[in-house]
Amino acid sequence: MKKLINAVDSVLEESLSGFARAHSDIIQFNQQPQFVSRKNKSENKVALISGGGAGHEPLHTGLVGKGMLDAACPGQVFTSPTPDQMMMAAQTVEAGAGVLFIVKNYAGDVMNFEIAAEMLDCPHETVLVNDDVSLPKDHSTGRRGVAGTLIVEKIVGAAAEAGADLATCKKLGDKVVNATASMGLALTSCTVPALGQPTFDITDNEVEMGVGIHGERGREIMNLTTADELVQILAKAIDEDLQPAKGQRVLLHVNGFGATPLMELYLVYDIASHFFEERDIEIVRSLVGNYTTSLDMAGCSVTLTLMDDEILQYWDAPVHTAALRWGI
Amino acid sequence: MKKLINAVDSVLEESLSGFARAHSDIIQFNQQPQFVSRKNKSENKVALISGGGAGHEPLHTGLVGKGMLDAACPGQVFTSPTPDQMMMAAQTVEAGAGVLFIVKNYAGDVMNFEIAAEMLDCPHETVLVNDDVSLPKDHSTGRRGVAGTLIVEKIVGAAAEAGADLATCKKLGDKVVNATASMGLALTSCTVPALGQPTFDITDNEVEMGVGIHGERGREIMNLTTADELVQILAKAIDEDLQPAKGQRVLLHVNGFGATPLMELYLVYDIASHFFEERDIEIVRSLVGNYTTSLDMAGCSVTLTLMDDEILQYWDAPVHTAALRWGI
Repeated sequence: MKKLINAVDSVLEESLSGFARAHSDIIQFNQQPQFVSRKNKSENKVALISGGGAGHEPLHTGLVGKGMLDAACPGQVFTSPTPDQMMMAAQTVEAGAGVLFIVKNYAGDVMNFEIAAEMLDCPHETVLVNDDVSLPKDHSTGRRGVAGTLIVEKIVGAAAEAGADLATCKKLGDKVVNATASMGLALTSCTVPALGQPTFDITDNEVEMGVGIHGERGREIMNLTTADELVQILAKAIDEDLQPAKGQRVLLHVNGFGATPLMELYLVYDIASHFFEERDIEIVRSLVGNYTTSLDMAGCSVTLTLMDDEILQYWDAPVHTAALRWGI
Repeated sequence: MKKLINAVDSVLEESLSGFARAHSDIIQFNQQPQFVSRKNKSENKVALISGGGAGHEPLHTGLVGKGMLDAACPGQVFTSPTPDQMMMAAQTVEAGAGVLFIVKNYAGDVMNFEIAAEMLDCPHETVLVNDDVSLPKDHSTGRRGVAGTLIVEKIVGAAAEAGADLATCKKLGDKVVNATASMGLALTSCTVPALGQPTFDITDNEVEMGVGIHGERGREIMNLTTADELVQILAKAIDEDLQPAKGQRVLLHVNGFGATPLMELYLVYDIASHFFEERDIEIVRSLVGNYTTSLDMAGCSVTLTLMDDEILQYWDAPVHTAALRWGI
């Protein structure tokens, strides 16, 4: 294992310390229990809280700030955060209008956010993100939450900032989840520091198609072929799932898993954008980069969100976080 | 070689096509010869043009836009762009106040920008960036231009946007170059698509200390040790070169080479920021992420820029590019 770390036990703590030092103008970091929260609290605003195992940076800590999350609770690498993190974060950022948890659909995350929710003595709702279409809709544990989570957080974050109440934020979050589909592929495995070796085996000629953001097995192991063929499989799966009408406006997000150069991500965007435009889908917004990563995994995912005037307006609204910023 | 590409000959073209499609709101892409330019031209503004071999994305194409570059000329991967690219870019973006070339110190880049400059029939100046302190100041070909280039482009870009004339932009650019020092290290080699194999050999226990952004040999090959020890070597080299006074305000930039997770980059920031703060250096601005990359190389660089009121004001000025955006 070749990583810029001091010790496997202290990676997360030291990384969060650096994050807090680099972004002390917008966030504050609570060490015990660990969570990141917005520096400037707005009164009477729905408090948005997300979280999940670390290793997906900038998700979620890098998305805390004006116009997006109020707090993020990082667990250890690829490990769910604990209910006390969520409870303490909620108590810190709750501002009189209730709490909305945005949770990626993984058993541990779901359970721990549920426990935290039960202990909360303020109004609260949960939006469950399950945008990964690599698994069938009726999969036993449901579909995984992946790169579409950022889009849910941006849209609902803007609505909360604009004064939407808890019920409205919950409804909007569910709407964005239903309008969003993602699928990814991996060329290499990631290496979790505490394990010290790749999470899964893959040869130089193989691609893990439909991979999850922790290196979970996807649809199939394929032979490595051209980017055209690989990206079209992702785009087709998304297209079949969302079934956008001709003329539909969409946001197209190409997300890198951490070790894939931006040069390749733009090449992937080129293929995916042609795929959808040839079907008379109108790409009105784009996001290309490493946002929902899997440590040092090489690969990418494609995410499509069906846009309407409401979602578009909230996407364009000002945001100021470590990883996403415009208008401020 | 495992990459998301179609063919080694078409990587750059297809990637630039995707870039142009994703960012058509801010840039336009000229195919023959290849360059990216700002969509909205300002009259009577010094035109800033940079360029260099591709493979360092988002540098430089991702830094074209309001408040930064007017055009960027990408060569093939790790290969200098040609004078006709620079000439045509200059003719396109020149707006009555002259042209400033911002050039990283590599023989091919320097030569081709010189040829282009000689052919220009408008006032022009060149700022040469040579911030890599891994090589001695009296090195035969001078020091290389690396991650500090982004800072030069941001500061001079803001000045040009504010109406500074050509002589002022040139003087400011030279000032920022002299106030900036960088050094990097690599854990793995990058793989240039056309070569198909790693650029240099490095074992699982080695670190290339002082590496260049094309995988050039640095100061020495070291044994892999803790991030603390490795980052302190980078920080010490920068400190010895710039010799900031106590109380000096600085910008601290931790740059990833492409395959290093953000989690590790923030851990590096933690170490570097402690190093300088313990020497009573005041870190007033920070930038952490993959900005000057080397394809899929794992590793990072640290850059320090000495700040004064003028540089700070221009750093904070609004910018709207694909990779760097605030205030707009």
